[in-house]
Amino acid sequence: MNAAEPVKTGLLAVVGIGPGAADLITPRARLAVEQAEVVAGYRTYLDLIAHLVRPEQDVLSSAMMQEIDRCRRALALADEGKRVALICGGDPGIYAMAGLVYELAKENGSTCGIEIIPGIAALNACAAVLGAPLMHDFAAVSLSDLMTPWPLIEKRLHAAAAADFVIVLYNPKSGRRSSQIVRAQEIMLEHRVPETPAGIVTGVGRPHESVRLSTLARMLDEEIGMQSTVIIGNSATFAFQGKMVTPRGYAAKYGLADAVRS
Amino acid sequence: MNAAEPVKTGLLAVVGIGPGAADLITPRARLAVEQAEVVAGYRTYLDLIAHLVRPEQDVLSSAMMQEIDRCRRALALADEGKRVALICGGDPGIYAMAGLVYELAKENGSTCGIEIIPGIAALNACAAVLGAPLMHDFAAVSLSDLMTPWPLIEKRLHAAAAADFVIVLYNPKSGRRSSQIVRAQEIMLEHRVPETPAGIVTGVGRPHESVRLSTLARMLDEEIGMQSTVIIGNSATFAFQGKMVTPRGYAAKYGLADAVRS
Repeated sequence: MNAAEPVKTGLLAVVGIGPGAADLITPRARLAVEQAEVVAGYRTYLDLIAHLVRPEQDVLSSAMMQEIDRCRRALALADEGKRVALICGGDPGIYAMAGLVYELAKENGSTCGIEIIPGIAALNACAAVLGAPLMHDFAAVSLSDLMTPWPLIEKRLHAAAAADFVIVLYNPKSGRRSSQIVRAQEIMLEHRVPETPAGIVTGVGRPHESVRLSTLARMLDEEIGMQSTVIIGNSATFAFQGKMVTPRGYAAKYGLADAVRS
Repeated sequence: MNAAEPVKTGLLAVVGIGPGAADLITPRARLAVEQAEVVAGYRTYLDLIAHLVRPEQDVLSSAMMQEIDRCRRALALADEGKRVALICGGDPGIYAMAGLVYELAKENGSTCGIEIIPGIAALNACAAVLGAPLMHDFAAVSLSDLMTPWPLIEKRLHAAAAADFVIVLYNPKSGRRSSQIVRAQEIMLEHRVPETPAGIVTGVGRPHESVRLSTLARMLDEEIGMQSTVIIGNSATFAFQGKMVTPRGYAAKYGLADAVRS
């Protein structure tokens, strides 16, 4: 680069597009896609926003499990001065690519701007279709032991179960991993009654969405896969008309029957 | 009601409008507001969507702490056949009104439809402005002991800290409650080093938004109030250019320097 040329500063927007439904993409995410010169992401997520991409935009589509390469290429383009939108399903800040982008930026000494645009995460979307399971303290635990030692995952499941957190299980099962959800259920049953409501949501926000209300004891009867999220209630969670509801504590404190009217 | 008249079925949409920025309101939330005959909510949240409300819509504005009354009136109107949008800040499913609506619907034998429309919660929005703190397992704990016994809150803090969860503290402090965040810090310091990154975000998404990156030891030097959310990292969380980043584990597993390029 000629010394007289001003350095062009690029921007990497890490964009959460939510669970897949077009009407759960925020205007901020949409604008970031529209303003990008390059749109990068995992193929499945790019398909979900195909209607937002214009012919003159460059598209970098990659296969699953290519996260490092995907983030590295997006960062490199932004470091060259491009406006890049890196598309994530859900919220890039929850078990997604925001962290990897910063890790790589640190390693590479990236100079581009980085903006994280939050999205509706699986936990937000799944809670909504299940009713109101996350009304009280909750813990999110990924059952994938690809990058986390299994004993640490077990420790977290025990800790969260013993302290009566509502529990959101990410990555409960995949083609190659099927024992983790069985073990998670065993651990939960050491701390909670079998009738504890448990919700299984698969493909939330997509046309094939499936929502099942079950119990801790019976939840493995339901189909659970790579696109599933499982939410297990706390000791106060109840089922009501096909929904699972964790009370916040209003009833205990005020008595719902004689709440003061304003 | 005349027996010959068809029963009109109302709908209560419990609508998450996100943290306050107009461009983080999803199209689904916006449409629910536009289609409502009655828009109900806490005054501050109604102000944030004033631009969406039309003159012909009824507005039920209520003061803070009137949650039970607000939900009850919204349900009653929906039971009469109205389309009602009950507005919540953030995500109605996370420490907000979705649960109370179902509790009251159960108590009253409500017949209206209930739809929960998820929104960008404080935890999503705060994580985004702080960088990438929620890349690994995390626990959300409310420090409000108005409706939860303090010993249970302490138990959850100990459990989550000991199992190395990233921790999101909701309701860290208010005008009348100032000791809880001090005690929470003490508990965390029993399990984590003082240098652990801690982020304090106040008024996220609003014009007065404040984002502070601190450490577990020094976090109480920052202003913390009713509109604050505090995120405390796990043992691997690091600070980088004013952001806090929790690694997912790619570096340990693959070595970022020699990732395979596709």
